[in-house]
Amino acid sequence: MKNIVDTLAKQCPELKNLTPFSTPYATTPYLADVKQKHHRKILNSVEDAIRTCGLKDGMTISFHHAFREGDKTINNVIDIIAKMGIKDLTLASSSLLSCNTPLIEHIKNGVITQIYTSGMRGELADAISHGLMKKPIQIHSHGGRVNLIQQGEINIDVAFLGVSTTDELGNANGVSGKSRCGALGYAMVDAQYAKKVVLLTESLVPFPNTPPSIRQDQVDYIVHVDQVGDPSKISVGAARVTKNPRELMIARYAADVIEHSGYFEQGFSLQTGSGASATACTKFLGEKMVRKGITARFALGGITEGIVALHEQGLIEKIIDTQSFDQTAGESLAKNPNHFEISTNVYANPASKAACVDELDVTILSALEIDLDFNVNVLTGSDGVMRGASGGHCDSAASANLRIIVAPLIRSRIPTVVQHVATKVTPGDNIDVLITDHGIAVNPKRPELIERLTAAKLPVTTIEKLYERAISLTGKPKAIKFADRIVGIVRYRDGSVIDVVKQVNQ
Amino acid sequence: MKNIVDTLAKQCPELKNLTPFSTPYATTPYLADVKQKHHRKILNSVEDAIRTCGLKDGMTISFHHAFREGDKTINNVIDIIAKMGIKDLTLASSSLLSCNTPLIEHIKNGVITQIYTSGMRGELADAISHGLMKKPIQIHSHGGRVNLIQQGEINIDVAFLGVSTTDELGNANGVSGKSRCGALGYAMVDAQYAKKVVLLTESLVPFPNTPPSIRQDQVDYIVHVDQVGDPSKISVGAARVTKNPRELMIARYAADVIEHSGYFEQGFSLQTGSGASATACTKFLGEKMVRKGITARFALGGITEGIVALHEQGLIEKIIDTQSFDQTAGESLAKNPNHFEISTNVYANPASKAACVDELDVTILSALEIDLDFNVNVLTGSDGVMRGASGGHCDSAASANLRIIVAPLIRSRIPTVVQHVATKVTPGDNIDVLITDHGIAVNPKRPELIERLTAAKLPVTTIEKLYERAISLTGKPKAIKFADRIVGIVRYRDGSVIDVVKQVNQ
Repeated sequence: MKNIVDTLAKQCPELKNLTPFSTPYATTPYLADVKQKHHRKILNSVEDAIRTCGLKDGMTISFHHAFREGDKTINNVIDIIAKMGIKDLTLASSSLLSCNTPLIEHIKNGVITQIYTSGMRGELADAISHGLMKKPIQIHSHGGRVNLIQQGEINIDVAFLGVSTTDELGNANGVSGKSRCGALGYAMVDAQYAKKVVLLTESLVPFPNTPPSIRQDQVDYIVHVDQVGDPSKISVGAARVTKNPRELMIARYAADVIEHSGYFEQGFSLQTGSGASATACTKFLGEKMVRKGITARFALGGITEGIVALHEQGLIEKIIDTQSFDQTAGESLAKNPNHFEISTNVYANPASKAACVDELDVTILSALEIDLDFNVNVLTGSDGVMRGASGGHCDSAASANLRIIVAPLIRSRIPTVVQHVATKVTPGDNIDVLITDHGIAVNPKRPELIERLTAAKLPVTTIEKLYERAISLTGKPKAIKFADRIVGIVRYRDGSVIDVVKQVNQ
Repeated sequence: MKNIVDTLAKQCPELKNLTPFSTPYATTPYLADVKQKHHRKILNSVEDAIRTCGLKDGMTISFHHAFREGDKTINNVIDIIAKMGIKDLTLASSSLLSCNTPLIEHIKNGVITQIYTSGMRGELADAISHGLMKKPIQIHSHGGRVNLIQQGEINIDVAFLGVSTTDELGNANGVSGKSRCGALGYAMVDAQYAKKVVLLTESLVPFPNTPPSIRQDQVDYIVHVDQVGDPSKISVGAARVTKNPRELMIARYAADVIEHSGYFEQGFSLQTGSGASATACTKFLGEKMVRKGITARFALGGITEGIVALHEQGLIEKIIDTQSFDQTAGESLAKNPNHFEISTNVYANPASKAACVDELDVTILSALEIDLDFNVNVLTGSDGVMRGASGGHCDSAASANLRIIVAPLIRSRIPTVVQHVATKVTPGDNIDVLITDHGIAVNPKRPELIERLTAAKLPVTTIEKLYERAISLTGKPKAIKFADRIVGIVRYRDGSVIDVVKQVNQ
């Protein structure tokens, strides 16, 4: 019975087109070699990984930004790619931050010619706002990024994912080892969809590494590096505990609004994001929960130490974490069994079979600008320069039952409330309440909220009055001088174009 | 700026082919409706689910067999499909057991015309062995099944997955609720690859249900049913604790062989499967580990209470579980943080980026027949009738460093050692040691093992001598009378055809 298939195919058509068995190792030659079996994924250097993956001009590379300002992977890998002479790449990092200033050079040199990101800050954002790139950058939300990947618009050839630990097969996480970023929600998506997945790791640990946030069946190659990120810089500028009386006032108002909104009931759910007022609000909300004797079913999103504190007090039953906003959150993910990790597909992708944001009662969001129609800009500053990120803003706003914006009415003598936002990221239809240090405006589409908050004697006003108040204090801001050229395209979570960013003309 | 895309596409080619933003709910209309938002996946009946999924003649349906003889989902769903008049289906259950006898009727009626499964038992297997079906059934290993799915040969249109609990979005597991099967390793694969995924659940619990073995982003519809399975029947015939002196003798030999094999070192790993001798061996091995002062790094596979006992004694560091072979294993998965669940893609698929079996030191396997070339048959009995399953047999045999077969030399006056196996499932190249109650045969390809086991004064013999011994006790068995017709095609884990099963002629 040398070739069972050929011999019998005549009498059994189901055998046609099947291959006869040859050896146990026909498709797995590494199993015949003990060394290969255990070390076939481990390469000596990032250069080796780039070469072995076949990275070529015109391809797309991706990264996660869980280390935020402490990231040590993105710049490092792109430096090496540049030295290898590869050009014309699309960079699809889940986001970019001030630490990515060195990329300016690689854009100038033609290594990076196209960018997809949730946002930008610092010198890189400034340079691109002033026309550094030929192609406009594409700004997406966290959920919308997964949608663009699934649709094939972002077609990742090689994902370079920094992790603190992995085993030799690629079971990796961000909650063990030295530089721990916590949740790997962005990286989980790239690990699933990229054609080739390279882990950069600080530490190779014995198989099986648990929990496997990224799984062995998703990983192609592993490279040991000195450092993937500096976790102390994850929360730079974000999760600080505020003593600023204005921020504390807004935080107290936010807690009051939630209390009287109709959604502050046993088993409610919330997303707070980072930001000083949101973090302080978490604490005030905890006090109200104790007083009312209720607990929250879950907190979602970027997770802060404030949320962890309420969880550990028994006030929040479960934490659903796609990004750990500080080291405390990462430590909680490692130790608290009801604090668990999700991909951004599960978190917020509108095209996924279900997004967690759909289950939210309350979301507290920030704004750089909000206009008279409640449209929100979280991307460009008052000078028109990019200095923020779409993030999960429009994702949770589309889905939650109560969408709150917290923002000071005036920042550095610039009003937050404007006639028309310079850049629309989240549509006003999805915003219910604006809380400022000068009063609370409720979207007229929610008359029941106006009624409840007024009855609770909160300082309810209208957005028009807040606008007038701001103007009366600062004068009408000068219009930003934009060139005609488009430097950024703002994608809504469903992939549609909600706005564009024009080049700043100065 | 009514239509930003059309207005600006001329000056910005990157805008071409993009859609302008319309409403936040363009792709997620359910978000605009609170009831829809929470109940859009929940259907009233299995009929509704079948209809909503658009199941049609000629399609492929799939199931998991984690409840083994206690399954209440497969027969139930196929009964309903039959009543709805749908015909010519391919049934791709991860396996089939004696409880699936009612399917005989649905094969006769033309509801099921093609079957992919790891194995078959009881009256269904008997009927198919005698020629019930026009097309031969396709037998695959657990790892090989995932490969066939990924290659598109098994193209699942609708997966019907029984789970004890899920939340309204589809986060489901088998470790909470009433009828708990434990690990959902098979179902995790179908949830990932099926075009439509329907959960049948006994209990809808509040979001978020944890742990989410099956995730919300994989699930289309949810139906509440009375019972998905009877967990008391998971271990029927398998995980019983034996007092049979012959089985205990084989178990002691197996533990001795492992001890002296060269692989019994700190941090070794093992897979034992079920079966009386394997289970008893686990216990003896534990005693040896205590004496030698070593621990195992992990145990893999179908998990039994014997493995759980060693884990809870601190003798096995981690348990990697793709199928819980008894209720104790399921309970351990629920409570022990170092007992974790994997899909069969991660467990054993040779085409996955890595399979856990590749990391195994020792695997203990069973055999219905083993021949002079060490080829193993775990599918057909001495009468040529199917009564077993490919399971993870060839998967772990291809990958482990020490592959042990435990089997009595003679069963009901029928020899286990034969000249040529009736059906080849695992190639002899991948078998190292056969342990019987009449002695131990080592594959001549492993001279170092012969040396070590002989030095340890174990009753080492040759497979030829075991064959002669068996024949001397039972006489030479009569050849099975097969017809020419092929009733089963046995696929190796890489998808190739390793053997066929012919119709039994009586």
